[in-house]
Amino acid sequence: QLVRRVRFNSSSSLDATGEKTVQPEQDVPGLTTFLESLKWDKNNLVAVIVQHIDTGEVLMQAFADRAALNETIQTGLATFYSRSRGGRWCKGETSGHFIKVQKIFTDCDRDSIIYLSDPIGPACHTGARTCWFKEVQIVVDGTEGKMDTFAVIHEGAHTHGDHVPRTTLQALEQTIAQRRREALQRPSDGSKPSWTVRLLGNPELLCKKIREEAGELCQTLEANEGRERAASEMADLLYHSMVLLNLQGVEMEEVLRVLRNRFTQSGIEEKASRPPKPQ
Amino acid sequence: QLVRRVRFNSSSSLDATGEKTVQPEQDVPGLTTFLESLKWDKNNLVAVIVQHIDTGEVLMQAFADRAALNETIQTGLATFYSRSRGGRWCKGETSGHFIKVQKIFTDCDRDSIIYLSDPIGPACHTGARTCWFKEVQIVVDGTEGKMDTFAVIHEGAHTHGDHVPRTTLQALEQTIAQRRREALQRPSDGSKPSWTVRLLGNPELLCKKIREEAGELCQTLEANEGRERAASEMADLLYHSMVLLNLQGVEMEEVLRVLRNRFTQSGIEEKASRPPKPQ
Ligand SMILES: [Zn+2]
Ligand SMILES: [Zn+2]
Ligand SMILES: [Zn+2]
Ligand SMILES: [Zn+2]
Ligand SMILES: [Zn+2]
Ligand SMILES: [Zn+2]
Ligand SMILES: [Zn+2]
Ligand SMILES: [Zn+2]
Ligand SMILES: [Zn+2]
Repeated sequence: QLVRRVRFNSSSSLDATGEKTVQPEQDVPGLTTFLESLKWDKNNLVAVIVQHIDTGEVLMQAFADRAALNETIQTGLATFYSRSRGGRWCKGETSGHFIKVQKIFTDCDRDSIIYLSDPIGPACHTGARTCWFKEVQIVVDGTEGKMDTFAVIHEGAHTHGDHVPRTTLQALEQTIAQRRREALQRPSDGSKPSWTVRLLGNPELLCKKIREEAGELCQTLEANEGRERAASEMADLLYHSMVLLNLQGVEMEEVLRVLRNRFTQSGIEEKASRPPKPQ
Repeated sequence: QLVRRVRFNSSSSLDATGEKTVQPEQDVPGLTTFLESLKWDKNNLVAVIVQHIDTGEVLMQAFADRAALNETIQTGLATFYSRSRGGRWCKGETSGHFIKVQKIFTDCDRDSIIYLSDPIGPACHTGARTCWFKEVQIVVDGTEGKMDTFAVIHEGAHTHGDHVPRTTLQALEQTIAQRRREALQRPSDGSKPSWTVRLLGNPELLCKKIREEAGELCQTLEANEGRERAASEMADLLYHSMVLLNLQGVEMEEVLRVLRNRFTQSGIEEKASRPPKPQ
């Protein structure tokens, strides 16, 4: 008898014909106990949040009934209960944009689930990466220091995803990409270009800076400069490296995927059995 | 007349006495139109997901009614409708663990909201960083290659957050921290230590590697080695730098906060007005 974790990301989830075998809940040892332990709402649903395993992006939010959770657990493909259609809904079944669920979590009071996932293609039916591409913009209409009037403007027409809820790393990546587009669109008008634009246009300077920042990060350890300096130098190194990634056409998402693949194949620890590269 | 974005993170959200002024919805230009545009469920609620602006962690999930959204927008503090208590619930009002909302997003069909946030303290009432600290563990009980029996085991007793839904960067950080704890707990038994443990115990080797990896990343650009090499070298550099951060007691979260603060103060672009450091 062998007990091991299901590899949700294994290709076994979907065989060559795309067929999935889902057993009834009660035929799966432990499953009924687990499903009973959840706090179902009045409609016998729990909320489900789909989060990208590499980038942390929240991709979509929907609801699941017992059958949907049963199916997700057995197939490794994100499945929900559609409130509008009143029935089962396996994301990707019509679009091909399946969401491979890597890990499943329940929240503290057991009424909300996270599917930590590796999506195939865009998660939103509009073709956007995530369903949250509309930012609620809030402007203050008043004199400085006296914020007594608010206006909420919703940019409903924006479907191109420029307002996607970007966390810090994604926002930085986007800023760099934006500077590059701007620099390409309107070449220097004589005004001093931003530091990012200078780096983008001068690979030699960029590489010099990356080596320098790596040295400064090391120095925080070598010269015992303290944790604040370390955080600051790491930020420098990360920023400059990400400018290089932009020039190479690489997104942080790909870097994170490389790191994840090294993990799950115990790649990092595997290195232990190899000596470091000869110098 | 001045129109500008509300700075949710400004201290003006909470004055010295902790008092917040919330105007009625109709006194805020544009707010009613925005609230009318949302797709409220049968209980007049929308789902709300609270996400950490720096790390991307999903911190909590709850629901909001019109009043809760009105209050959140005006105060910049995450406020909800509590289904169990049947009323208003401003997170942190009793615990002090307020959640400062930096940006608000609506999803494609306008029934789910993200509060992109900077939390003060733990988001979960249990004291955990996020509400999802319980992983649903799925084991396969069968002979290799024949996954015909599933068992779902929920580790209900685990409240210390060791199963928090970690995205790749957090998982890597955690693996490094784990290696460090293991190395401290049981000193070398003569078996070959993992590469991470070797780096942790040899700052000289670590710094040598970081400088090396920075060089290798630069070389992908200098020698035009292509995007795959660039992603791989960036992964190397990130991993080794994060081992250094662990030795310095710095978490990636802090590095990301540094980057965000530089942004919002236009720090990166501000550098444009400064010449690069003299060599
Ligand atoms: Zn809950
Ligand atoms: Zn969508
Ligand atoms: Zn836009
Ligand atoms: Zn520096
Ligand atoms: Zn929705
Ligand atoms: Zn909680
Ligand atoms: Zn455990
Ligand atoms: Zn544990
Ligand atoms: Zn390398």
